[in-house]
Amino acid sequence: MVHVTADMMVSLDGFASGVDASQSLEQPFGDCDFEALARWRFEDADANAAEIEAIVGADAYVMGRNMFGPGRDEHDPEWTGWWGDEPPYGAPVFVLSHHEREPLVMAGGTTFTFVTTGLRDAFDRAVAAAGDRADGGGRVSIAGGATTLNQFLAAGLIDELRLHVVPVLFGAGQRLFEGVPPMRLEQVSSRATTHVTHLTYRILR
Amino acid sequence: MVHVTADMMVSLDGFASGVDASQSLEQPFGDCDFEALARWRFEDADANAAEIEAIVGADAYVMGRNMFGPGRDEHDPEWTGWWGDEPPYGAPVFVLSHHEREPLVMAGGTTFTFVTTGLRDAFDRAVAAAGDRADGGGRVSIAGGATTLNQFLAAGLIDELRLHVVPVLFGAGQRLFEGVPPMRLEQVSSRATTHVTHLTYRILR
Repeated sequence: MVHVTADMMVSLDGFASGVDASQSLEQPFGDCDFEALARWRFEDADANAAEIEAIVGADAYVMGRNMFGPGRDEHDPEWTGWWGDEPPYGAPVFVLSHHEREPLVMAGGTTFTFVTTGLRDAFDRAVAAAGDRADGGGRVSIAGGATTLNQFLAAGLIDELRLHVVPVLFGAGQRLFEGVPPMRLEQVSSRATTHVTHLTYRILR
Repeated sequence: MVHVTADMMVSLDGFASGVDASQSLEQPFGDCDFEALARWRFEDADANAAEIEAIVGADAYVMGRNMFGPGRDEHDPEWTGWWGDEPPYGAPVFVLSHHEREPLVMAGGTTFTFVTTGLRDAFDRAVAAAGDRADGGGRVSIAGGATTLNQFLAAGLIDELRLHVVPVLFGAGQRLFEGVPPMRLEQVSSRATTHVTHLTYRILR
């Protein structure tokens, strides 16, 4: 049985990044107080090591095009993601896109495969990739951004949601849970460090 | 120095109640999954005793008209709030309203005073009432609902925000932080029980 998780850092008012149009090469998270959003990862990494490691501990990933890069049109063949030559995923990553591109094999085990046939297809391919583990019990992570995660939540495909709630208000941006219907969750764990509270939920179906 | 706090229970997607128009005598919180929102208070009161007590531990309160009752027009002289003859506040409560009404003296020390001259005036009266304490260090609580709290947050009048975040998605409703500008906060404490995480923040100015 493959387990499907999603991690997302969010402002206290529920935004995962600035408004979509403000994303750029210089501002992957758009126009927002990214310093406050990511302080727990950069200034307090030791205290949050378990949660940081878990974000990239899955066996396969799905991510939206905007999480892969700032481009919106045809792929720039020079662009290989925000993460340098050796991305931290170390596993197959399926990138949702409206534009075809050959798979990109990176150092350290990460491959970016571009899927133009929709969310469900990308999901099935990630599940198949994660299920290839010898014990059959792989994990798929929906890596983001908020728009992609919202589509997966609305489609009922997430088992476990891991929010990293940060003490900042953005006032505007890409909103987590936008368009996601009412549902109940179970609080699995809650752990705070200085600049963040890590909230883990199981989605009840 | 009077300390200004606000408590609010919110769904994980940031709603404090159903949409405004759905509030009624039968549904004080409107059309929402109130059972899930309030489970920690009713089914797990012992584990959350400290937070529940603190909600009504202030020396004076400000609340919006919709928190006082379902009416929107002239006051019904028979209506004395949702809380019975002896409301849990035990202190002066200033109710924001567009309609005049004589103060209402309840058992146990609660008085409801109706303020038609605006948020700032209600705030000043609550601060004066709380400041009457012998040690001069009273606490004013902005009791809700979300619309009222948002106005106070936007006006920069809150020192400490205490959220009670519940594992449910409403999908729609009265949204906490609607219209509140970007700002940073400091995470003061974070404590979880089975059905809720209590998050306390200091607002940085």
